[in-house]
Amino acid sequence: MSKFWSPLVNDLVPYVPGEQPKMANLVKLNTNENPFGPSPKVIEAIQAELNDSLRLYPDPEGESLRKTIAGYHKVKPEQVFLGNGSDEVLAHIFYGLFQHGEPILFPDITYSFYPVYCGLYHIEGKRIPLNDRFEINPDDYAQPNGGVIFPNPNAPTGRYLNLSEVEKILQANPDRVVVVDEAYIDFGGESAIRLVDDYPNLLVSQTLSKARSLAGLRVGFAVGHPDLIEALNRVKNSFNSYPLDRLALAGAQAAYEDEAWFRKCCDGVISERERLTEALEGLGFEVLPSKANFVFARPQSKAGEALAQALREQGIIVRHFNKPRIDQFLRITIGTPEQNDALIGALELM
Amino acid sequence: MSKFWSPLVNDLVPYVPGEQPKMANLVKLNTNENPFGPSPKVIEAIQAELNDSLRLYPDPEGESLRKTIAGYHKVKPEQVFLGNGSDEVLAHIFYGLFQHGEPILFPDITYSFYPVYCGLYHIEGKRIPLNDRFEINPDDYAQPNGGVIFPNPNAPTGRYLNLSEVEKILQANPDRVVVVDEAYIDFGGESAIRLVDDYPNLLVSQTLSKARSLAGLRVGFAVGHPDLIEALNRVKNSFNSYPLDRLALAGAQAAYEDEAWFRKCCDGVISERERLTEALEGLGFEVLPSKANFVFARPQSKAGEALAQALREQGIIVRHFNKPRIDQFLRITIGTPEQNDALIGALELM
Repeated sequence: MSKFWSPLVNDLVPYVPGEQPKMANLVKLNTNENPFGPSPKVIEAIQAELNDSLRLYPDPEGESLRKTIAGYHKVKPEQVFLGNGSDEVLAHIFYGLFQHGEPILFPDITYSFYPVYCGLYHIEGKRIPLNDRFEINPDDYAQPNGGVIFPNPNAPTGRYLNLSEVEKILQANPDRVVVVDEAYIDFGGESAIRLVDDYPNLLVSQTLSKARSLAGLRVGFAVGHPDLIEALNRVKNSFNSYPLDRLALAGAQAAYEDEAWFRKCCDGVISERERLTEALEGLGFEVLPSKANFVFARPQSKAGEALAQALREQGIIVRHFNKPRIDQFLRITIGTPEQNDALIGALELM
Repeated sequence: MSKFWSPLVNDLVPYVPGEQPKMANLVKLNTNENPFGPSPKVIEAIQAELNDSLRLYPDPEGESLRKTIAGYHKVKPEQVFLGNGSDEVLAHIFYGLFQHGEPILFPDITYSFYPVYCGLYHIEGKRIPLNDRFEINPDDYAQPNGGVIFPNPNAPTGRYLNLSEVEKILQANPDRVVVVDEAYIDFGGESAIRLVDDYPNLLVSQTLSKARSLAGLRVGFAVGHPDLIEALNRVKNSFNSYPLDRLALAGAQAAYEDEAWFRKCCDGVISERERLTEALEGLGFEVLPSKANFVFARPQSKAGEALAQALREQGIIVRHFNKPRIDQFLRITIGTPEQNDALIGALELM
């Protein structure tokens, strides 16, 4: 610490992202990236913007991209808020919509950035335990709160909550914002975006980092009632007018204009997920049912951490969380068929 | 307003960026972009990153770019903090270093985002009047405060403060962070970065949007004592782990690897600034001495706002601020020789 720091800096416990190792030839199954590359149309669209126009500021409102996303999801452009990755979108949500003097609610096992945002903005967070099958029970979210947030599918469990269950949470909280963080929705779930016109308290966040294969481009967004979007715009325009650069805006838009590529990649991930799940079960793992681009799996004999370490020695990186209830599990990103084969082969020999 | 908003959202008064008109063929002299494009090496470097690797997250620490900037400025990589444009860097500075229960100090006429950050984070801001010649007087900053920030050269005046004067402000505030916002430093000023090892309370912010011609890429940074950088890293890692995308990281690095291009562009802007200043003075304008890539000029006869409007009707956009003390002035970005000729020609006929 330092006398120069704002005192709150002393108490910050930052988020720790999954490792981005710099070695080549790793089987990198630790940060839920898409094993398939982005659409060639994304590359072409960025290419077309790669010129002297970089000297000019981007559109601060990202109007063209918002229109594209709105059209894709059948909402109005004023229902779409853009950010520098969904992490930035979530940060603005916490600041602009979750400060009501009551604890916000999220699952005890979930995206570990939520408690970090709480710490950043001095918001109390109340962790609602998942049940024994690691499922969200909507009834648990019918209690006084300053807001609700959960990923669907949840991370790192991969478990999906049906929209009828999501609606129960929305109906129990008519005066509070309920955020459904859909980073992984495109791998088999149904988006709650189709509910935004029915629930003025619903905000859905998504990212282009997973299903759209653009983790390297940093684009995320939220969809909801224009009043909620207006709050986020006020915060954003008090923080950074231009969160998305010209190349990211162009590439993101092109990603929505190549539905065939998107479907092919998602289908590829899903079929590999089913294959990997079967193989892991064959090796004695307990595998939670996943609708994400990863599986959450508990080895039969070996401890989770030891197994992660043993795989690392083979050049295969998966993610282990040293946290209560889940320290026996590994979160394994679905790789290419070859990467998944490498993982299965390594596990067979252990 | 809405019941869903955090109450503080009601009071936010967001920053209003200069207009980014979508019409072609404008003479756009309103947002201080560089009239010359980025280095061809920037384009090449981004090109080389434009591939399947976009599916992968960028380096959250931006290590390679930090090393490059550190080498360029003869500091250590741990003295460099990166952000999504210097606006994001400044936001984290306000949050992480300026919350001490005392008002922070900045000039009354300055970058209008400073009071916006104050509003966002509930920091009291105290405006210190510039003198009659629109200069910063260092003695005015020797008073109790929670931090000091000013641009050098100042915006929108363009006036530059010599480093010996900057040092007076640093010496008067040994227990508070003094931020020198050097967005425009490369157009004739000397950077305070050479002072960071002498003053643990000095933080210098810069951007690649101006002298490096990369406003469209969104990269900024701060340089200072590692303790100050650590505070910013804690805030950043509690907000968004990956603020810079892969293409921005690559392009920014290449911009520092083409010194010849950089110098040529800066020299071009400086010589055009001197030419435009002379022409404006010949037309009866009062022009403040500028070390930036813009001039701040007061027409002799016409009101500032009316003149801006008349120029707009000719397809020439400059910036007018409807604010006390400066509402008679126009802020005119230095354009290409052709753009500046167009401006001078239009003014001669008015």
